[in-house]
Order: sequence, then C-alpha cells, then structure tokens
Amino acid sequence: MTSGKATNISWHGGHVTRAEREELLGQQGAIVWLTGLSGSGKSTIAMAAEQALLASGRMAYVLDGDNIRHGLNSNLGFSPEDRSENIRRIGEVAKLFADAGIIVLSSFISPYRADRDAVRESVEKGQFVEAYVSASVETCEGRDVKGLYAKARAGEIPEFTGISAPYEEPNAPELVLDTNIQSLEESVAGLVGYLDEKGYLSTGKTA
Amino acid sequence: MTSGKATNISWHGGHVTRAEREELLGQQGAIVWLTGLSGSGKSTIAMAAEQALLASGRMAYVLDGDNIRHGLNSNLGFSPEDRSENIRRIGEVAKLFADAGIIVLSSFISPYRADRDAVRESVEKGQFVEAYVSASVETCEGRDVKGLYAKARAGEIPEFTGISAPYEEPNAPELVLDTNIQSLEESVAGLVGYLDEKGYLSTGKTA
Repeated sequence: MTSGKATNISWHGGHVTRAEREELLGQQGAIVWLTGLSGSGKSTIAMAAEQALLASGRMAYVLDGDNIRHGLNSNLGFSPEDRSENIRRIGEVAKLFADAGIIVLSSFISPYRADRDAVRESVEKGQFVEAYVSASVETCEGRDVKGLYAKARAGEIPEFTGISAPYEEPNAPELVLDTNIQSLEESVAGLVGYLDEKGYLSTGKTA
Repeated sequence: MTSGKATNISWHGGHVTRAEREELLGQQGAIVWLTGLSGSGKSTIAMAAEQALLASGRMAYVLDGDNIRHGLNSNLGFSPEDRSENIRRIGEVAKLFADAGIIVLSSFISPYRADRDAVRESVEKGQFVEAYVSASVETCEGRDVKGLYAKARAGEIPEFTGISAPYEEPNAPELVLDTNIQSLEESVAGLVGYLDEKGYLSTGKTA
C-alpha cells in the first residue's frame, strides 16, 4: 500500500459487490422463507438444513425467534401493527444477509400473505424462495411440543394462529414441505435439493 | 439420508454454532464499529477495508446509511428516540452478522457514547472493536464532499453533529484512525493490521 495525504482520498471503490462475495463463497445469496403453523416443523427443518449446508461448505444462517425476538425485535409486541413490523424487519435483515451472499433460512409463522409478498416483491426475482411447511392443525396440535396449543385452547394465548387467528396459505410457494407425511430427512433433502437444482449452491447462474 | 415418520422427528440439532461457521470461514466474527463526524472518512475506510479483506479471502460486510436507512430503518426519523433506536437496531443486526462469523464494518456517526457502549456491553469481550475515525470539524468541513456542512451552517439542517449537535468522543476506543494526518491507505492498513494482529483473521484464538 502506498501512502498519501488524507485530503487527497481517491479511493473510488464503493461496496464490495454481491457477485464478488458470491464468487468467494461459491454460492448465491437467497432468502428461503419458511412459513407455516406453530409446530409444523419450520425451525427444525431450517436448523437441519443449515447443518447440511454447512457440512457441504456453504454459508447459511437461520433467522428465527431465538435470535430475533430477544434482540432486534425485542421492542415489538403482538398487535397487528407490531406483527407486520416484525416481519418487515426480518425481511430487511434477510435481504442484508442475502446481499452478503449468504443463504438465509427464515423461520417464522408469518401467517399473512401480504407480509410475505412484501418481502418477495422487495427483492429480485429468484432471490425469494417461499417454502410452505405444511401440516394440519391436527398434526401440529398432536405434536404440541411447547404446549402452546393446549394453552391456546384454554384461552390463555389470544389470537393463536390456526386456533383463534388465521393462517393464510401461500398461493404459489416455490416449495411445499408437507410434514404431515414427510420425514425431517425428506423435507431437508427437498429443500437442499431445490437449492442445488436451481443453482444456488454454485456460483454459475442457472434458473 | 434415511426416511421416517414426520411424527417421530428426532433431530436434536439446534443452531450451527458460531465456532463451526468461523471454522468454515477461517476467521472470527466481530463488530468493527467506526464512529466519527460526517466527512471524517468512516464509510470510505469501511468500504476500502471490506475490499482489502475480501481480496484476502475474508468475509466482511459494511453496514452504512446506504443499506440501512432505506431498508431496516426507513421508518425512523431524527428525534432523539429514533436516533437511539437507529443505533440499537444496527447493533442488533451487527450482532447477527458477527454470530454468523462475519467481520461487520459498521459505519455511522453514532455520536452518543451511551448508544455505542450499549452495543459493546451486549456482546462478549473482544467482539466489539470501536474504531474512532478522528478528524476535526475544520478538516471535515474543509472536505464537505456532500455539502452538508454548508447546509448546516446555513441552518438548513438542524442538529447537525459537530455544528449544532454534540459528538461524544470514545473514551477508550480499540483503534484511532486520525484522518487529519493519515492517508486512506494508512487507515485501512491500521484497521486490517489490528484485526490480523488480534487474531480475527484466522480461526485460532489469540488476544
């Protein structure tokens, strides 16, 4: 590096481009948006896919309640406005990660079509992969790992998606992972297989 | 992969750990928080350092007004509360990137010590590198690349840091990049050299 006067700053750079970062990582940034009922398996699939991708040398990162609700969105409640703002912020963070060349696995119920579509429409075509983690209320309630359905039935949780608040299914998701009938391994294979097939796991564009 | 019943999900995973991601990337995640007056050179240094790091195979990512103000923080104004919330959200996003193993270069005036210290205190020791990009108001005003100082002097921009609003210098920053006297190359070398020396650019811990 050469030295010079600070007053003569001539670095004409700008941000490193997304393409340069993708070249370094050997993959393409994308937002995989998992949506579905509580207990449908979103986070389990997201974390397993993250592990599978990392094991093959790819950079993936899961955004979920664990790392968002107590951090970035700790000042949001559950009013309709706050729920929308919750998803909006998550979408914006996902876009930053995708811009950094990373495969983001976003795992939130995100029950409203309009909120999900707003994220989809704010990125370039092909950078938003909506993965509908489909399971019936009966299936999810049968699992009820966190006991939330029982509480919702008892009226202890108001506006619980699938019980007392609506879930709007995606109209045309890129992926459907039906956990009523698929094993976790099948769902992960479906998700990672889709990314591979569409060229996200290498630098050269396809799709 | 083996297949099984969805109702028998037994993946006991959890998130990929930060250490696993750092191993893949061959570096350590960190938040380099550049703070200083408008025109001090923060973003120029951040983008040049990002390029230098990428050229040596490291994953760095700049957070600045370009990718934050029109996205994540587009619903914030310039009231004291909104300014604090602005920095809080940036800090939370920076933490997510650092958790992903990435070296974040955050480039915002961030004039208040309390806001910066809140970010520092919310991460583990060593993960927050405060880089004070030091330049006098006279130096910055002399550059006035964006014409903002002229507007501030004319009263067209209220509460402009350094003119009509305070800038609180860091008490004990990890780095001081004095652009009154340093060239861009010297500042970038100082920043990247610090990261190298402290072990952020390799997997093995030092410091």
